[in-house]
Amino acid sequence: MAMSAPTSPHSFLLQNPNRHHLPTTKPISLHPSPRPTKPISITCLASVQVHDRPAAAAQDRVFNFAAGPAILPESVLRKAESELYNWRGSGMSVMEMSHRGKEFLSIIQKAESDLRSLLSIPSDYAVLFLQGGATTQFAAIPLNLCTQSDPVDFVVTGSWGDKAFKEASKYCKPTLIWSGKSEKYTKIPCFDDLEQNPHAKYLHICANETIHGVEFKNYPTPKNGLMVADMSSNFCSKPVDVSKFGLIYAGAQKNVGPSGVTIVIIRKDLIGNAQEITPVMLDYKIHADNNSLYNTPPCYGIYMCGLVFEDLLAQGGLVEVEKKNVKKAKILYDAIDESKGFYRCPVEKSVRSLMNVPFTLEKAELEAEFVKEAAKEKMVQLKGHRSVGGMRASIYNAMPLAGVEKLVAFMKDFQARHA
Amino acid sequence: MAMSAPTSPHSFLLQNPNRHHLPTTKPISLHPSPRPTKPISITCLASVQVHDRPAAAAQDRVFNFAAGPAILPESVLRKAESELYNWRGSGMSVMEMSHRGKEFLSIIQKAESDLRSLLSIPSDYAVLFLQGGATTQFAAIPLNLCTQSDPVDFVVTGSWGDKAFKEASKYCKPTLIWSGKSEKYTKIPCFDDLEQNPHAKYLHICANETIHGVEFKNYPTPKNGLMVADMSSNFCSKPVDVSKFGLIYAGAQKNVGPSGVTIVIIRKDLIGNAQEITPVMLDYKIHADNNSLYNTPPCYGIYMCGLVFEDLLAQGGLVEVEKKNVKKAKILYDAIDESKGFYRCPVEKSVRSLMNVPFTLEKAELEAEFVKEAAKEKMVQLKGHRSVGGMRASIYNAMPLAGVEKLVAFMKDFQARHA
Repeated sequence: MAMSAPTSPHSFLLQNPNRHHLPTTKPISLHPSPRPTKPISITCLASVQVHDRPAAAAQDRVFNFAAGPAILPESVLRKAESELYNWRGSGMSVMEMSHRGKEFLSIIQKAESDLRSLLSIPSDYAVLFLQGGATTQFAAIPLNLCTQSDPVDFVVTGSWGDKAFKEASKYCKPTLIWSGKSEKYTKIPCFDDLEQNPHAKYLHICANETIHGVEFKNYPTPKNGLMVADMSSNFCSKPVDVSKFGLIYAGAQKNVGPSGVTIVIIRKDLIGNAQEITPVMLDYKIHADNNSLYNTPPCYGIYMCGLVFEDLLAQGGLVEVEKKNVKKAKILYDAIDESKGFYRCPVEKSVRSLMNVPFTLEKAELEAEFVKEAAKEKMVQLKGHRSVGGMRASIYNAMPLAGVEKLVAFMKDFQARHA
Repeated sequence: MAMSAPTSPHSFLLQNPNRHHLPTTKPISLHPSPRPTKPISITCLASVQVHDRPAAAAQDRVFNFAAGPAILPESVLRKAESELYNWRGSGMSVMEMSHRGKEFLSIIQKAESDLRSLLSIPSDYAVLFLQGGATTQFAAIPLNLCTQSDPVDFVVTGSWGDKAFKEASKYCKPTLIWSGKSEKYTKIPCFDDLEQNPHAKYLHICANETIHGVEFKNYPTPKNGLMVADMSSNFCSKPVDVSKFGLIYAGAQKNVGPSGVTIVIIRKDLIGNAQEITPVMLDYKIHADNNSLYNTPPCYGIYMCGLVFEDLLAQGGLVEVEKKNVKKAKILYDAIDESKGFYRCPVEKSVRSLMNVPFTLEKAELEAEFVKEAAKEKMVQLKGHRSVGGMRASIYNAMPLAGVEKLVAFMKDFQARHA
């Protein structure tokens, strides 16, 4: 899809002043817009309302550091807004479309094709758009890949990996071959030290632990079986060699869309061996054979993921996206490390997440004040997860550099006032 | 929520010309808008664009007779459009909100409260907002209500009930005590003739069969156990005495929202006995204990359902909604019955669905032409389900009377030209 690349929202509006008023089939820029400059002054009152709106609305917008559901690209939201009532002249909203109609088929097929481009997914892998979140996959994966007696290895580096391990115990024989729990989930193990079971059907990891901010920078090699990874919170944040994995799964609501869509990328030869007790909706074969249309899929969520995939491609793909994420994370971690202990990140430096940055205050009694003052400055959802406390800044793909710069400036000011 | 009730989109626009241009926290009317009249002519160019938009867009709109996902109320789509980028001054889209933040909590709590009002749901019933469609419930219900050896009775009046029966056989001992299959699913049995198993844990029915257009007008009384009903395609289309059921479930994408949300209404004393093999995401206790927030719910879909519930309440509740549905269905069935056999509905008159109207042409060779010509007239998705052929007009709550009137006029014209 060809895209124009305006330098600011205003330049686009001048090209197409009707943008927010009449449904259009013209492609619009999906590049992130810089923060708005002063609105252009135009005499006609109604016209001022028209042109003034994006600037005014963007000024009203907060920087949302939530861990998920999370910030979406502003340009994607504008595109969705412009198409919500009448999708590209179809006469209906995407929310009203039959999932078997040609309009929605074009949406889901393009979403899959763009995702395949982004991650260079090999043709011997199926891409499934499912429901139920990663938590449903915690059951579906052993139900589809194992018999009740099959051994599976788990490396648990945070709460989500631990949940996956506990759920798997209903459907196979999982072994915890490494856990970071005693060190409060701040580390990734040395792969050479892992005592893998040579008969394990797969080795399960959570590639990025959303709560603890621990991220695998490279991946262990299974002794014999497959690699299975929960990539919910760093999916599409950087390139991944899909061919190294038997199965990758991710909830969409961190980096690629709204909640309610779960993406499973699975090597096709692994499909078709589900246990008899597997609910039909958890059987990958059913979904693969029906191109994710066995029953009604979460159509609007898939549409939104498709808009995000277009945006990521328009940015130059995941190599470029990773560069931006590295830059944002460095600014934030540097601010923490250079605070002389005023701010602290408990995670081992080599495995700190590019997506979720947990940190504490030396003076813990100031944490509530920090979160409160930040919210006044329109930086929201900075409170740490209830299980670990402190603060957490989730800086997914859609968080602009400006958001991280504003947070760092606030942190320095807060420190100056409270050191 | 207080509502103003404008007589036309224009009257509202005159009250609030910025409606489509600046996010607003003011409640707007959720009454269905009549078809637009000639747009008001105003000299300022930009202003004309502003005021002209709803009229122009509405003229572009089709009448969508899809069986689901299906038509949504125009006013609900407009409300969603106006709030998509910045929900009520929160500075973020509903799609970006943390499901644990105060903004989304207010949305899901109001959605539940409005649904409880609509259906007068007793306080000893839990309302769960889940994922995975009715198909996931086909497994979840026996997993939660039965042991592997418990008998369950099924009355199967169409394809969906049959799917529920087959899936249940994995998790309990279901018996088909009546099936309409031999009569091509055109009937509902006489309840007195049902040979119920006195030990059955529950009696399962599909209250409205979407594909075959067969609808229960009243309900059998279980000999001993509970009534369990799949109400996916007639949920909130008329009042229901919830207290007569142990469990009611429905996919949202017919009458109350987009796809991706499944609503379960269950008597609380039935919660907490799930089989050990139940995936955590299929365990009602997990969701009930966590107010549907155990993991990330389909937030945007729940928000849309909430807007539809507000709309149904604003219409006067389900008694009024049923009156409209009865009127729409009568017009369409009368046109079929008065066509001297040119159009035929195979369903027994006393159990014809108010929601899904299947019909065939005496001259079957004209059916493709009928669907094609109707589409040219902006009446889409009239092709019957691939398993039964013919045509099907789904006329859910959100289908305006004007849509049914236009279809009937087209049917008469088509008959005049082809009789």
